[in-house]
Amino acid sequence: MNNILCIYSRFWLRHLVFMGAGAMGEIKHLVVVKFKEGVVVEEIIKGMEKLVSEVDLVKSFEWGQDTEGHEMLTQGFTHSFAMTFDKKEDYAAFQSHPNHVEYSATFSAAIEKIVVLCFPCVRVKPTG
Amino acid sequence: MNNILCIYSRFWLRHLVFMGAGAMGEIKHLVVVKFKEGVVVEEIIKGMEKLVSEVDLVKSFEWGQDTEGHEMLTQGFTHSFAMTFDKKEDYAAFQSHPNHVEYSATFSAAIEKIVVLCFPCVRVKPTG
Repeated sequence: MNNILCIYSRFWLRHLVFMGAGAMGEIKHLVVVKFKEGVVVEEIIKGMEKLVSEVDLVKSFEWGQDTEGHEMLTQGFTHSFAMTFDKKEDYAAFQSHPNHVEYSATFSAAIEKIVVLCFPCVRVKPTG
Repeated sequence: MNNILCIYSRFWLRHLVFMGAGAMGEIKHLVVVKFKEGVVVEEIIKGMEKLVSEVDLVKSFEWGQDTEGHEMLTQGFTHSFAMTFDKKEDYAAFQSHPNHVEYSATFSAAIEKIVVLCFPCVRVKPTG
């Protein structure tokens, strides 16, 4: 009986996580970049970490630097930055937030090429 | 007292999630694509959802379709797919898993252009 209860609550927990990601409209802002030569990437990333720490509108933030390095697959892109927002309005407010506007100027000057996608996040398997 | 306990356990839960993302070497496999014209994207995505559901090596999976549509920012890319693995070995095992190899042929035939990055995920703000 305990097992059934356990499985049942895990089902609902998963269901809630899934609903949280989907139905409630979590928004993901994904940025993939190649930095210009000579840019001190650590400084740029430190600035971004500071920005997202200061602005509560950003629900989560994660980034990474490609370690596989297959040019045919990466197309020269090296870094990925992903921010999550609870709702579209939070993303819009972040875009016009003075800290973001200020940081964007620094960031834009540092990049050679960029791809930006923004989408409602569909979570098939829960994270965490 | 209950409140303090609750806050304390939430702190540790967050701390564990954070540690799990960083110190334990969680690997993210990010794929950004533009599909060929005429491709039934829903079928391709359904296939990917089936694949990750069948293979336990994939710890988490989320995807999204860009809704902003600024060509200058998206560079024509429309979809993002992100899989997370507990460790590099799991990612390697997934790459050579027969279900993945089989699905890859279908996926490759459907895409016009692609960017693939693979990196240890640095989580600055916890998700979930």
